[in-house]
Formats: sequence, structure tokens, C-alpha cells
Amino acid sequence: MPRVVKASGTLEKFDEEKLRRSLTGAGASAELAEKVVEHVSSRVYDGISTDELHGITLEALWRLRPRVAASYNLRRALMMLGPSGYPFEKYYASLLRAYGYRVETDVLLDGRCARHEVDVVAEKGERRLMVECKYHSRPGTKVDLQVALYVYARFLDLREYFTEAWLVTNTKFSEEAIRYARCVGLSLRGWKYPEKEGLERMIESKGLYPVTVIPSLDGEARVRLLKANIVLLRELIALKPEDVSAITGLPIERAARILDEARRIA
Amino acid sequence: MPRVVKASGTLEKFDEEKLRRSLTGAGASAELAEKVVEHVSSRVYDGISTDELHGITLEALWRLRPRVAASYNLRRALMMLGPSGYPFEKYYASLLRAYGYRVETDVLLDGRCARHEVDVVAEKGERRLMVECKYHSRPGTKVDLQVALYVYARFLDLREYFTEAWLVTNTKFSEEAIRYARCVGLSLRGWKYPEKEGLERMIESKGLYPVTVIPSLDGEARVRLLKANIVLLRELIALKPEDVSAITGLPIERAARILDEARRIA
Repeated sequence: MPRVVKASGTLEKFDEEKLRRSLTGAGASAELAEKVVEHVSSRVYDGISTDELHGITLEALWRLRPRVAASYNLRRALMMLGPSGYPFEKYYASLLRAYGYRVETDVLLDGRCARHEVDVVAEKGERRLMVECKYHSRPGTKVDLQVALYVYARFLDLREYFTEAWLVTNTKFSEEAIRYARCVGLSLRGWKYPEKEGLERMIESKGLYPVTVIPSLDGEARVRLLKANIVLLRELIALKPEDVSAITGLPIERAARILDEARRIA
Repeated sequence: MPRVVKASGTLEKFDEEKLRRSLTGAGASAELAEKVVEHVSSRVYDGISTDELHGITLEALWRLRPRVAASYNLRRALMMLGPSGYPFEKYYASLLRAYGYRVETDVLLDGRCARHEVDVVAEKGERRLMVECKYHSRPGTKVDLQVALYVYARFLDLREYFTEAWLVTNTKFSEEAIRYARCVGLSLRGWKYPEKEGLERMIESKGLYPVTVIPSLDGEARVRLLKANIVLLRELIALKPEDVSAITGLPIERAARILDEARRIA
């Protein structure tokens, strides 16, 4: 039985059933999942890394069903919304917009005792949200109590402007942060948190994928696209190959291929 | 006119008057300051680093007046209370003890909404202080607003235990942190902050130097001594050369020399 080397360096038996579950969890039919599992099983070898395993699975899925591949790749795609925290902020602001909020990013506000930069200010009806975004480029990095504490203190200082405070991350929260946030009334949203109302649900139900789900969009081209504030797949699709080429510095054929891949998901 | 290369890489003319002021500021008489300035001026060269300049000055002072040398070296000595933040916490707790407080370090407390680790809990009469220590190993690193915010939120959560909250650092505070702290009633103490009531005054007026003021205590020996919780000069002086040798791993002759230097200050 081949073993998989995890990012932490520990070994784990390759588990077909686990792979099957993660595929159906991303929206694959039983039949599609079976095809992919068969393909991956034939290529897996003892000592394969989780990264390579993910790559093989994604490649197979991508050929068969790009939309499911996007879902399957979503967690990693969110971790590629870097290197700074700004693309994630902008992405989350776009999600809120899709949910009917009026949204502004990077707003300077004078509180009772200090001036604060608020990542996202969102309004809908009577609700006025102060949103703090915490982007992490690695899995396993949790938002801890200290962050929850300072976000809540900032909210107290800006109380006159807002009706609620949100702390949003692409990863998870520590248990102590969750306990504290619940107790003071700070809302949290992260990957699969809260259960069934996590970031992944917000994204899936509106089909608002980040550009980083596209497998062939990598390295410098990815960073340049994000710097040009193209973070949503639908923003990318609205462009012409020449625009994408100009922004990313890629030859026009590669830019056209990226656009083509983007359209297959959307 | 020789120029000095600062840590930031910028050049600055060597300024005798500035050196003279820093020496008298550390308690040197006009006569002593003059002697040291003469000695340093004869050895300074174009392109000397501030570190080397400090070293030459300290060496001269040390020969003439160890007690003044300790004062002159105090700011750097506080930055050597590392590598973790713990020696600085322990040092500050000792200072508070010298000022008549009952003191405990690293206290776990259950607040209204979360469990917190408090660096130092200090009591005197009706006063109960929650003290958060921020140690920095480099000059120029300021405690910023974010830290002041989370310390204040922690204080709110632990309100039933304390009458006041203190944020203490061996360096400085950002202006925004100062403004916020004043406004919410969080007390700050750092290097020369508040003016004339800063950390350096607390130390000088009780003569409570950290062991790191001793010029020849460096590298691994310094770290081992701090790990063994010997942070005050007076704690060191209470030891025998054999103890110092056992703790630091230094040969007994070097241990005896360090003790001898320590006694000359105290």
C-alpha cells in the first residue's frame, strides 16, 4: 500500500475512500469520482507528496469537469491570494457585494481614541459591518485569541460607526478565539467555519471563484494579475487576451489559454 | 571630520558635543566626560560604526568608572535580555518588587470570555496591576496600536481581577499607541517614556541593573545565565564563582572575572 508524505513530514497510507469523499464533497458525481480515483490510484507511488497527489487529481478532474476542479482546488486557491493580504481583502469585499452589500475597502476612520484602517466596510439596510480580513498563505495557520482581542477593541473604539464586527480568514480559528468571539459577540467566518456557512459555501453558492483556481495561472503572472486588482474569475473573463497579456507579461497565446480555462469553469 | 555609519546605513558626522551630553546624561562628571571624549576622539576614524564607537566609549568609561559605564550601557543591556521575552518579564517583575509590589509572573486567569496568560500580576495596597511586557531586541522597534488594543481588550475581559493595566517595553511606543492608551486609561512605560518616569529612571533610582550591563558577559554565557533566571546584577553578585561557572559553562577564572566586574558596578 503506497504511503503519502504530508507537508508536516509524517507518513499516511494512501486512502482511496478519503479521496473519493473529497471529490464528491467538491460536487463530483459518484461516476466522475470513481473515474478520477481510478486514474489517481494508477499513478500514486510510495512516498508521493500531498502536493503531487493534489496535482494529479486536479489535472484529471480538470480534463473531465473544470467546474468541479475549481471547487476541489478552492482551499488552495484561496491560499494563493497573496503575497500581501490585500487580494484576499478585495476578494472578500467582492463576495459581500455579490450578497447585496455596499462595500468599501481600506477605510480610515477616527474612533473615540484612535484612527483605524478598516479592511472592509459593508452596509446593507440597517446593518453596518466592520470587517477585518486575515489572510494566511499556509494551511494550519489559525487566527488566534490575540487577533480576536484587538479586532474587538477596535470595534469598541469605532462603535458609533458600526452595528457589528466580523473577523474573516481563509484558514481557521483557534478554539480560544472562537470561545472569546462568541462571548463578546464578534462574528467569525473562515474555511468551513461556521459549519455549513463557511467561506467555501459563500463562494460556491454564488459561483464566485478567485482567479487562482485556474491551474495554469502561476508564479509572476498570478501576482501581477492580483496586483492589477483582478481577483474574481468573472473579472478575468471580461478581459481580452491582449489585456491579460499586457497585465501579466505573458505571450498572447498563453494569455488566451488562461482565458479559455477560465471560461470553462464559469 | 570623521563620519559615523549608523545601524540604518546612513552617515553622520562624529559629534563630540553629542557624546559629551550622552556621558553626562549617564551620570559622568564634566571632568570624566572630558577624559572619555578625548580618548574616543583620538581613536575614532572615518567610517566607524555606531557599535564600535559605543564599544570604545564603554571600554574607556569602564576603566574609569564602572557605575557610570553601567548607566551608559543600560539601553543596550535591556536589548540583550533575550532571546525570548521571558528575561525581560522577569526583570520587570523584579523592578516592581523593589518598588514594594507583591509580584507573580505568567499567571493564567479565566476572564469573562477567555483564558489569558498575564505576564506580570503586581499588587500593592488596593492596587492590582495587569502588566503586559513587550521585549524588543532591536532599537527603533516600537510597540504599536495593535498591541495596545489587544492589551486593553484583555484588561476588559479580566476586569474583575485588576484595578489598572500596564503595557511595558524596553523600547518606545508609536504615537497612535500613546494617544489610544491615554484615552482608554491604559498606562505605558518604556525607554524614556513617560518623560522622567521611564524605565531608565526606575532602574537608576534603585540601582537595579540587569546582568547584561557587564561588558564581558556575552554570547552563550549570557543566554545561560538568563535561562537560569539570574537577571539582576544583585542576584549574580550573591553567587560564588563555582556557581557562575556551573551555570554558564565558563572556566572558573572567567566566571570570577565576571563576578568581579559585577561587584565594581554595585
